[in-house]
Amino acid sequence: MDAEHKFGVRKLEILDKSKGFIELLQQLTICDSVSDKEFEERFQEISSYGDDHLICVIEDVRSGKIIATGSVFIEKKFLRNCGKVGHIEDVVVDSAARGMQLGKKIIEFLTDHAHSMGCYKVILDCSLENKAFYEKCGYKQKEVQMVKYFI
Amino acid sequence: MDAEHKFGVRKLEILDKSKGFIELLQQLTICDSVSDKEFEERFQEISSYGDDHLICVIEDVRSGKIIATGSVFIEKKFLRNCGKVGHIEDVVVDSAARGMQLGKKIIEFLTDHAHSMGCYKVILDCSLENKAFYEKCGYKQKEVQMVKYFI
Repeated sequence: MDAEHKFGVRKLEILDKSKGFIELLQQLTICDSVSDKEFEERFQEISSYGDDHLICVIEDVRSGKIIATGSVFIEKKFLRNCGKVGHIEDVVVDSAARGMQLGKKIIEFLTDHAHSMGCYKVILDCSLENKAFYEKCGYKQKEVQMVKYFI
Repeated sequence: MDAEHKFGVRKLEILDKSKGFIELLQQLTICDSVSDKEFEERFQEISSYGDDHLICVIEDVRSGKIIATGSVFIEKKFLRNCGKVGHIEDVVVDSAARGMQLGKKIIEFLTDHAHSMGCYKVILDCSLENKAFYEKCGYKQKEVQMVKYFI
């Protein structure tokens, strides 16, 4: 099996919960265990947006584990002549699978999806330390992200 | 009529196109004229998301003009225990109506909406020069925004 096939990017499937998808997200931020029912409900909610909210994964077919993921959703605006913007979120590569360009593959997949959906731009927020990675993916710094937490 | 009533925040209505809503967006970025049909189609698309994508406006009832707007959409995640995040976009106050705290009213309305929808945080991107305004609204700088344009 060639490397290209082994590390192909595909859409999230409902069975990916049992392949370590939630554990992978836990490398990114707080993410307690999610019950099968909660997962299924959220999966269906997101699926109901069709191509407007896409979550992709890379599965290591040898181990059957999800080792990279990222998401993009398409925002519909009035400005830019009723334009659309892609928002990339929740990009993470398994700490044991770094250095194989998997993050770049994820970003390219999500960026291509936004482009094919007719977006005029794609945006994302990242830490200063990840800025160089996104620059390699063709992104440029523009604004600053502001946040307000409720919890 | 008291000032509170005169400058109340409400949801965007389809008739707001004839009240200068598009012209207001033109103060923010590129926004050529939009046909009634295009406006109506995009309005219906956004409305189909219900409370998950809210656009609010302030109308000056004396002039019948829309003088402030902003939007928030609710992103559904798996992380943070199937959490939700509010994304604020396209905030603009008419240049002739600055200094009346209308921007603050818009941000409070959108932030409250995200909170009531169960979001654990709200985020937005802004220029460095607008950072102080958002700090007054209770926001803090966190990450940097990266962008890739297709046009």
